[in-house]
Amino acid sequence: MAFGIFAGLNTQPMINVAIVGFGYWGPNLVRNFSAIKDVRVKKVVDLRSERLQAVQSNYPSVEVSNDVDSLWNDATIDAVIIATPVFTHYPLGKKALEAGKHVLLEKPMTDTVEHANELIELALKKNKVLMVDHTFLYTPAVRKMKQLIDSGDIGAVRYFDSTRINLGLIQQDVNVLWDLAPHDISILDYLVNEMPASVNARGVSHIHNGIENIAYLTVNYTSNFLAHFNCSWSSPVKIRMMLVGGDKKMIVFNDMEPTEKIRLYDTAHSVSSEEDKRRVLVDYRVGDVYIPKLDSKEALGGMASDFVSAILNGTTPIASWKSGLNTIKILEAAQQSIKQGGKEINIA
Amino acid sequence: MAFGIFAGLNTQPMINVAIVGFGYWGPNLVRNFSAIKDVRVKKVVDLRSERLQAVQSNYPSVEVSNDVDSLWNDATIDAVIIATPVFTHYPLGKKALEAGKHVLLEKPMTDTVEHANELIELALKKNKVLMVDHTFLYTPAVRKMKQLIDSGDIGAVRYFDSTRINLGLIQQDVNVLWDLAPHDISILDYLVNEMPASVNARGVSHIHNGIENIAYLTVNYTSNFLAHFNCSWSSPVKIRMMLVGGDKKMIVFNDMEPTEKIRLYDTAHSVSSEEDKRRVLVDYRVGDVYIPKLDSKEALGGMASDFVSAILNGTTPIASWKSGLNTIKILEAAQQSIKQGGKEINIA
Amino acid sequence: MAFGIFAGLNTQPMINVAIVGFGYWGPNLVRNFSAIKDVRVKKVVDLRSERLQAVQSNYPSVEVSNDVDSLWNDATIDAVIIATPVFTHYPLGKKALEAGKHVLLEKPMTDTVEHANELIELALKKNKVLMVDHTFLYTPAVRKMKQLIDSGDIGAVRYFDSTRINLGLIQQDVNVLWDLAPHDISILDYLVNEMPASVNARGVSHIHNGIENIAYLTVNYTSNFLAHFNCSWSSPVKIRMMLVGGDKKMIVFNDMEPTEKIRLYDTAHSVSSEEDKRRVLVDYRVGDVYIPKLDSKEALGGMASDFVSAILNGTTPIASWKSGLNTIKILEAAQQSIKQGGKEINIA
Amino acid sequence: MAFGIFAGLNTQPMINVAIVGFGYWGPNLVRNFSAIKDVRVKKVVDLRSERLQAVQSNYPSVEVSNDVDSLWNDATIDAVIIATPVFTHYPLGKKALEAGKHVLLEKPMTDTVEHANELIELALKKNKVLMVDHTFLYTPAVRKMKQLIDSGDIGAVRYFDSTRINLGLIQQDVNVLWDLAPHDISILDYLVNEMPASVNARGVSHIHNGIENIAYLTVNYTSNFLAHFNCSWSSPVKIRMMLVGGDKKMIVFNDMEPTEKIRLYDTAHSVSSEEDKRRVLVDYRVGDVYIPKLDSKEALGGMASDFVSAILNGTTPIASWKSGLNTIKILEAAQQSIKQGGKEINIA
Repeated sequence: MAFGIFAGLNTQPMINVAIVGFGYWGPNLVRNFSAIKDVRVKKVVDLRSERLQAVQSNYPSVEVSNDVDSLWNDATIDAVIIATPVFTHYPLGKKALEAGKHVLLEKPMTDTVEHANELIELALKKNKVLMVDHTFLYTPAVRKMKQLIDSGDIGAVRYFDSTRINLGLIQQDVNVLWDLAPHDISILDYLVNEMPASVNARGVSHIHNGIENIAYLTVNYTSNFLAHFNCSWSSPVKIRMMLVGGDKKMIVFNDMEPTEKIRLYDTAHSVSSEEDKRRVLVDYRVGDVYIPKLDSKEALGGMASDFVSAILNGTTPIASWKSGLNTIKILEAAQQSIKQGGKEINIA
Repeated sequence: MAFGIFAGLNTQPMINVAIVGFGYWGPNLVRNFSAIKDVRVKKVVDLRSERLQAVQSNYPSVEVSNDVDSLWNDATIDAVIIATPVFTHYPLGKKALEAGKHVLLEKPMTDTVEHANELIELALKKNKVLMVDHTFLYTPAVRKMKQLIDSGDIGAVRYFDSTRINLGLIQQDVNVLWDLAPHDISILDYLVNEMPASVNARGVSHIHNGIENIAYLTVNYTSNFLAHFNCSWSSPVKIRMMLVGGDKKMIVFNDMEPTEKIRLYDTAHSVSSEEDKRRVLVDYRVGDVYIPKLDSKEALGGMASDFVSAILNGTTPIASWKSGLNTIKILEAAQQSIKQGGKEINIA
Repeated sequence: MAFGIFAGLNTQPMINVAIVGFGYWGPNLVRNFSAIKDVRVKKVVDLRSERLQAVQSNYPSVEVSNDVDSLWNDATIDAVIIATPVFTHYPLGKKALEAGKHVLLEKPMTDTVEHANELIELALKKNKVLMVDHTFLYTPAVRKMKQLIDSGDIGAVRYFDSTRINLGLIQQDVNVLWDLAPHDISILDYLVNEMPASVNARGVSHIHNGIENIAYLTVNYTSNFLAHFNCSWSSPVKIRMMLVGGDKKMIVFNDMEPTEKIRLYDTAHSVSSEEDKRRVLVDYRVGDVYIPKLDSKEALGGMASDFVSAILNGTTPIASWKSGLNTIKILEAAQQSIKQGGKEINIA
Repeated sequence: MAFGIFAGLNTQPMINVAIVGFGYWGPNLVRNFSAIKDVRVKKVVDLRSERLQAVQSNYPSVEVSNDVDSLWNDATIDAVIIATPVFTHYPLGKKALEAGKHVLLEKPMTDTVEHANELIELALKKNKVLMVDHTFLYTPAVRKMKQLIDSGDIGAVRYFDSTRINLGLIQQDVNVLWDLAPHDISILDYLVNEMPASVNARGVSHIHNGIENIAYLTVNYTSNFLAHFNCSWSSPVKIRMMLVGGDKKMIVFNDMEPTEKIRLYDTAHSVSSEEDKRRVLVDYRVGDVYIPKLDSKEALGGMASDFVSAILNGTTPIASWKSGLNTIKILEAAQQSIKQGGKEINIA
């Protein structure tokens, strides 16, 4: 770990990070890590020269390189952030950990559970932080949901229903589940303590390359809790909605709302009398609705701080490798289920 | 077929109908059938005396009875409308057909495919009309969707995605799929010509009686068309939305909108240049949107007329027994799939 | 006051009412008054024979007549409900009061303040109930707003802003203010205790008869409270929205929402720090939002009961003649202001 | 006009601009002007040292100064962009024009019509471009409205109704009309050719300094066209909606919609038969609705290009001084009307 210029005065060491891959998400990573005291974004690596030029014109103090292997022996680099296509997460992550670097992987963690487990073992052995950028876990909306659930406010959690559909760019390498569902699966994993038992999934491809652009996933539990995911790149309307049903109250998270993202519905109203029953048929809402004020913090900043805190203070980050692994387990099983006609696939 | 009082002057025969079951839907049936020239609602049968009193005070000219068997030998009754719980559709429908009556069954048609097939055979043998009250097929919104698809306007149909969720009364006898999905499955059957190959379904029950209050259903085809249904009695928000995706345009049917129920999205815009691709990432709509003016006719009136026309003119109704049977086939297979952990069940 | 058949057993007298005018609102009046114990709808008067036939076929027990003068000497009639065009309210109301009947007038009360005052004097002299059917005052939404204001929950009331616009039928006899604004003005009068000092209004007519189809009205007070009304028959979108701003909280009443009609915004959050100020620029909502569950009672039933209670028990109805008079005062002044180029017109 | 480094090769002269005032809007101005070929943002002037530091760290190549007078004798500066509080627009604009600079003023143009006229005269005399940054005129939504109106598609324009309300920062120097209405008034001026005859306005202040935080403005014409503006800093909901009614079709511009900002309603459907009339009472939409795809260009870039083109090519910009002057005329008259109890104030 490199020490800052004023290390004698400031006992806090300075962390140098390198970012591999400067695509769509790259500028956000540079900006958010740069904003953290004690962190310096030292280097950005990308194979595309025009992307490196973009780094240079916007962040003149950041070094650039098209050679990722230059990082491993660079003792001034403490941590590597890997924001490249998913199939490269494992080989790059492995090299970085072997070189003694802390590692932050973009979501999804890796392309297989086996690869994820290997990286985890290596991180534990090397005593390095291994974390996955599940940015959504740091949004004020998801934090509020976590708080509402943990407080017991909504009662026992009964179901989780997520829809993430829009008219999107068709990916070349992964299907719609691997592209969109990591957000929602990691939120499920964060909010609900019970581990899933199995999955069923169906998908369809309307593209010549056979990659599914629409997919449906059910995650099953031994209790009577059930989760469902509807993912599509082919919807004319953009919907990002999540329902979390408790036996007292229910939460709706509508991420398309600019500020009123979370709504808490009081649904515990007992319907007993004949008159009540008839009324419910026409009036679909049973109790009051409450829309909490949310903070307006940027989620990515919280994620970056959590990574840095894990390195400096040894804290366990919210988006830990466990979160990453649990997400991959479901995705891999879903893939198998799709290939086998929606067959139930157990999760180890 | 009974002839009217002025049969000598009016060559059109008068049809007498009896309605069995005067629950939630009963008053609508009486009102709509009464509004048809050449139809007389002659009798309403219900076991509950307070329901019969409701008939008498609102429709003094309609006879009432608590004895359904009084209908079979009543030669003045031409047609029987059966609006009772689903498990009684088969025995009552059978008696009515055997007695030579035309039969209109509330949806879903019967509780099993076997029962449906028996009634169909009987109707064909007796040369009587057998029809199912899939009222939704007569709504201006569904008629407009049919027209948009048949005209080739949306291109080849690629997927069908339906969500019908709300906070509802828990049924005692059927699960949420049998309660809510008949609407959407009959619409699918009406809009799409290809026959389904198989289904997968998962459900969960949060009620002591084990009846599923949330269920997800995928209907699979040998082509790359896919249909999905999300049904719930346990959602704090009421959503009734259907997406029908073509390779040129896509339809959104939002039944919660008071008038703008159908939206047609032009999604055929080719995304080819690099600039275009980047733009799509932020702008989720590709082309114009068109919201057609819909008629404001009452669907139930159209259904009633279609039944009467089938009796008088021998026309094939939109909500024919084929529509009813195809719907039941999917529901029965879905039930099996739920019981077998979401296993793919072929449709005969 | 006529006594019921079982008057010996039941000390409550039976009230007989007559309804003059059986147009759009007529069936609702008959249905709601008939539903009140102790009330009998004895007679309906209308000049149009087809409307009288509609009464007879739907309510066989109600007498019909095309001669309104038959009511005045009919001692069995206790109260008269006048649901005719506004310019007839005064002559019919006068005759009814002179004949010793209680009178309920459709809104707006009369066509001039002078006429309203005459009727009020007469009612006081004759000791009869004179009331105006401002149905909106009995809706659960308006009752909830009244309760939120009276409880001090929203603090000192600062402004009232109402928009009631749609694509409507052009009226032949009154302009858009007289047609639409009585709803909102009577709500203003109900919610706010301060009496208005003056009005300004502008309007425009796009119709050959010169009747305004769009009009804007400001109601001014000696305090720094201000009310504004936007009324139009020429809007392609239907908006029925009311904002009531307090210095602690603000209410939004959106009558186009099926159930979530009332929203209470916590806006008392103090914005002091530089950081806060910057945040407010991008985040337009300051605190939590609360959507109270509303009753699902029919407003017209509450209005009818209030009229009957005023007759039987001498209670002061919510929609009293004061409410009617205050509404007319503003409408009449608004009319004058429109004719004088928006000039400020004092309210006596 | 300064010539570029490679002026011998490139015949296009390079324009150097200075920006006075680096507040909320400043970074957007620097970014958009920097993006124009042939334009160099040479200098930013601000009195606040922390704002100048912000310039330096983000745009190292831009000179900074806290002395605005340093601009006037700087022959390398061709154009000055004045983004300071409105009361300084006149003195700074005057100095800039006298020094022979082209001038772009932030909206509103000046604090009085007299000041605006003086600047216009000076610009004409000096033959310099004088323009106002009415950015909204360059948005794809407003351009589309202009096109729909000019094509005759909506027929004769009948009314204009604008609502711009939210929970905003209270300004220290100008009231809500001067802060918010310039957007909408400049759009009105752009869309409609007829010149306004008079205004009426009412406002209210809930703040100790007497500055109106809510105001209503009617703009009157000699024809039967009418415009209305509802402006508020005290609304719990953010509404930015504009209705433009023609006698064939009507436009709704909802700026809170992320992409579907413009809706075109076909309202020319003739309502003649009795049945139609009754239907209109319940169905508020008469014809089809069309939502055109809008470009996703940044409006400020279009404004900047228009200014540069006016300098280089002598074109008349959309947001010309005429647009600025017409907007100020209405604002000044509105202010007078507010002070005189809503009295009608003629526009010279």
